[in-house]
Amino acid sequence: MQQRGRFITLEGGEGVGKSTNLEWVADWLTSQGIEVVRTREPGGTPRAEAIRELLLSTECDEPLDGDTELLLVFAARAQHLAQRIRPALERGAWVLCDRFTDATYAYQGGGRGIDASRIGELERFVQCGLEPDLTLLLDMPVEAAQRRLQGRLAAGGQSRDRFEREHLAFFEAVRQAYLARAAAAPRRVAVINADAPLANVQAQLTACLDERTRAWR
Amino acid sequence: MQQRGRFITLEGGEGVGKSTNLEWVADWLTSQGIEVVRTREPGGTPRAEAIRELLLSTECDEPLDGDTELLLVFAARAQHLAQRIRPALERGAWVLCDRFTDATYAYQGGGRGIDASRIGELERFVQCGLEPDLTLLLDMPVEAAQRRLQGRLAAGGQSRDRFEREHLAFFEAVRQAYLARAAAAPRRVAVINADAPLANVQAQLTACLDERTRAWR
Repeated sequence: MQQRGRFITLEGGEGVGKSTNLEWVADWLTSQGIEVVRTREPGGTPRAEAIRELLLSTECDEPLDGDTELLLVFAARAQHLAQRIRPALERGAWVLCDRFTDATYAYQGGGRGIDASRIGELERFVQCGLEPDLTLLLDMPVEAAQRRLQGRLAAGGQSRDRFEREHLAFFEAVRQAYLARAAAAPRRVAVINADAPLANVQAQLTACLDERTRAWR
Repeated sequence: MQQRGRFITLEGGEGVGKSTNLEWVADWLTSQGIEVVRTREPGGTPRAEAIRELLLSTECDEPLDGDTELLLVFAARAQHLAQRIRPALERGAWVLCDRFTDATYAYQGGGRGIDASRIGELERFVQCGLEPDLTLLLDMPVEAAQRRLQGRLAAGGQSRDRFEREHLAFFEAVRQAYLARAAAAPRRVAVINADAPLANVQAQLTACLDERTRAWR
């Protein structure tokens, strides 16, 4: 019988270098002969991406209620799990996902102040026990990450989405919630110091991935 | 202190005459000097209507997972409650809503086969005990309702949405789930025989509304 694939998530706030490192992790896994499905949250399927649009849109003046935001995040997650993540893991592929439920605890919990127990209710409802085998948390001080984000948006001529428009205190709360998640699940979550030259960050990632993939095989 | 308004919902399957009778109930309440906020689910606010679009759309080939559908319904409901229903009730207005949580038990529960206990989890999560003071359930045999719906769509040159495209067995299950909800909460839910001339249906509605509004004042 085909062995179930592994589920790896990459987490971190805005500007920590998630996109660059996600690509790098995907390439590293592929170089080890592993079939990798790269995806992201919220989103990952056409219907889940449509839900993502509702979450990130700044076009509507009506405030988005905290419960509504949380339910939309988990609606997108349910779709992503049913249509993409679970089928990939079942056929033996590895799934590499840009953000997952730790981001919900960080953004909707830490950032918006929604009680972690309410997030936990929906996590159990939707995931029925499924969680990542490994989470790589890219961590760095908020001010440094914001400078990077500012530079990237200015260079690309992009405007900030609904989350990117939040204030420093919001991002500080997001960072602390991420670190608390890591402290509570040290075997699952590896904290990567992202406030370092790219080669150093990638050396940390390699060391972590190398150790885990050997243990799993 | 201002007395809290009353929350009335109108329920029933496709083709039972909900729109016509909703308008009629609104007019009757207004004629009694009551400020009525007319609204509908899923929807009722700009963000909730955007979620409704995702639920009814037939443009995407990807199947909509049952959990995703249920979470989207409750995401729209959370937004509607926070932005429109609760504020109206608190200022003393009455809210008259075209469908609410009974429809979730009927469509997602009876129709799609989602377990009522899972619907109940999200109902408690989102509503925290709020439920309609009165639910008017327009009931008629499915075949008769389908003939009415067919005639209406043909006359209007409209196409069916994702729910209207379901089969007779689906609508029969929806009807039975509605009747079971009414049987379980006979004081809240009034079953109106909608397979009758309009004047007769409206006489039933008047009798019911007259009795309830006298009791509440």
